[in-house]
Amino acid sequence: FSTASGETVRATLFPGDGIGPEIAESVKQVFNVAGVPIEWEEHYVGTEVDPRTESFLTWESLESVRRNKVGLKGPMATPIGKGHRSLNLTLRKELGLYANVRPCNSLPGYKTRYDDVNLVTIRENTEGEYSGLEHQVVRGVVESLKIITRQASLRVAEYAFHYAKANGRERVSAIHKANIMRKTDGLFLKCCREVAEKYPEIAYEEVIIDNCCMTLVKNPGLFDVLVMPNLYGDIISDLCAGLIGGLGLTPSCNIGEGGICLAEAVHGSAPDIAGKNLANPTALLLSAVMMLRHLQFNNQADRIHNAILQTISEGKFRTADLGGKASTSDFTKAVCDYI
Amino acid sequence: FSTASGETVRATLFPGDGIGPEIAESVKQVFNVAGVPIEWEEHYVGTEVDPRTESFLTWESLESVRRNKVGLKGPMATPIGKGHRSLNLTLRKELGLYANVRPCNSLPGYKTRYDDVNLVTIRENTEGEYSGLEHQVVRGVVESLKIITRQASLRVAEYAFHYAKANGRERVSAIHKANIMRKTDGLFLKCCREVAEKYPEIAYEEVIIDNCCMTLVKNPGLFDVLVMPNLYGDIISDLCAGLIGGLGLTPSCNIGEGGICLAEAVHGSAPDIAGKNLANPTALLLSAVMMLRHLQFNNQADRIHNAILQTISEGKFRTADLGGKASTSDFTKAVCDYI
Ligand SMILES: CC(C)[C@H](C(=O)O)[C@@H](O)C(=O)O
Ligand SMILES: CC(C)[C@H](C(=O)O)[C@@H](O)C(=O)O
Repeated sequence: FSTASGETVRATLFPGDGIGPEIAESVKQVFNVAGVPIEWEEHYVGTEVDPRTESFLTWESLESVRRNKVGLKGPMATPIGKGHRSLNLTLRKELGLYANVRPCNSLPGYKTRYDDVNLVTIRENTEGEYSGLEHQVVRGVVESLKIITRQASLRVAEYAFHYAKANGRERVSAIHKANIMRKTDGLFLKCCREVAEKYPEIAYEEVIIDNCCMTLVKNPGLFDVLVMPNLYGDIISDLCAGLIGGLGLTPSCNIGEGGICLAEAVHGSAPDIAGKNLANPTALLLSAVMMLRHLQFNNQADRIHNAILQTISEGKFRTADLGGKASTSDFTKAVCDYI
Repeated sequence: FSTASGETVRATLFPGDGIGPEIAESVKQVFNVAGVPIEWEEHYVGTEVDPRTESFLTWESLESVRRNKVGLKGPMATPIGKGHRSLNLTLRKELGLYANVRPCNSLPGYKTRYDDVNLVTIRENTEGEYSGLEHQVVRGVVESLKIITRQASLRVAEYAFHYAKANGRERVSAIHKANIMRKTDGLFLKCCREVAEKYPEIAYEEVIIDNCCMTLVKNPGLFDVLVMPNLYGDIISDLCAGLIGGLGLTPSCNIGEGGICLAEAVHGSAPDIAGKNLANPTALLLSAVMMLRHLQFNNQADRIHNAILQTISEGKFRTADLGGKASTSDFTKAVCDYI
């Protein structure tokens, strides 16, 4: 395969664990049929700690993403046992994945309690409540540090406004609890305001997190782009996924230092159904579409995206998690047929 | 008025600001009609700082709650200006209000996207992310401390299990992010587990906050009693209020040191409609019902509660916030008539 200019793009693929390899296979088939000029570099999570990364991720796999600057990742279950860093957190740290972006849209034909969701959550992905700095002060008294920096806040705010503008979005809402955490969330807001001034064409507002969650469940249509510190992003992005049906339907993509784009399905590895041809590949497929848009393969992205939406809306190719009887390969075939 | 034993109970009433006095008037009328043997001690927020409380709350008003051990509070807007402690936070601190309890039930006849909500959130109300301890490390780097103590965690966990048992509830879910905040949320969970062991008849589970929020919007019927650290409680209690229609319909009650019970409407003071006989008294009325149950005035509590539910379900006495045209006094009269 090749682009109009004849060029082939290399991208890293982490099929991941559990159902990961099956749904990654689905993406490969769909990309083939759509004629996407991508050559995959496949990397699996290792079975023992690689001393160079201090985790089960191999040094080669991280180098692959750094070199290609673009990748797709399936679910990774962190092996249980003390001292092992979470694979997801290791990737965020090692690749400087500073923004997690999740477009969240009601899927036509897949009924939930909401049909009016059309928003994007942008989560700061490197600091805040995830600092890992905690200690016991005295017996029975422990503390965790939430760290907010000007640098990381500006960076994610810049990304949010850039994203809003590039995607024809009209408003950015910064989510916070600065009425309580005046200094940390206060600094986050200050950075958002600074960036907002550079984008007069994008409306800017600030919403307290408790109020934001209440409004999201009452009237999610009121939101457009949301930008927020790490933990609020963790909470709100999953809440929003719930509005449209769950993590099995939600694409996600991480933006990292040096222009890295690592798309990922954020659902679990579902070991109970792994290898049984039952998994729903939608989240990974939609994430792969985000990766294509990042590469400006818009034609292929549109065709694949529409085929996925049609397959879900059609109903009869739904997998078990969506109440259907189709297998992973039935679903994949339907998407390929629509393309 | 008097109880069966002829006894009258004294309770503190903070009508609060904005719409507070109108909705407090509604409670007084309803209590009158239902023959509730309560004598109110009314206290208003001061217009200047009382040096004995370092806030706009008068020392007498706090003493009144400490003495009566039971009270009802309308909305209080914290005067803007530097150095003034939030009135709500001052009350929590000064009265040791360690647990905020919010039963959240779908209201028959008032349609939202959910008709299956029947849960109770119990929020630790004194520590965690609300410590107020924050500082700038260097320019552009700030930190906030989240403090979790064994004492406060055990106390709120004890209350949650006690509440579950006393109210015929079957399960307590502890909400956390201990996969990230291993020490702080880890200690909270450890305390919940210790208490859970003493209540073998109540099921116990632990749910990560992101997953909890996703499940709440997909299927709130899966939850029964939820107990959680301060900020998660702040977020989740408002999210749950959103499921049934908003803060105007949600009762709340704070349990404090020495057996204090301070019921409160948690919505705002709505200065724009204050004094216009437009406010919805439901949240304060339902909170007053919680206070009556605390006093074991179960007969009056049931009668008032049913009258409120009937009035809302009937439709024609709904106030503007619920899409109706009724005034505060129309609504109140309807409740009184049903009693
Ligand atoms: C698994 C966990 C560490 C992770 C997080 O909290 O970031 C997950 O919830 C996510 O959102 O990717
Ligand atoms: C007003 C604010 C300080 C308060 C809180 O965060 O606790 C409010 O949101 C609440 O839930 O009572």
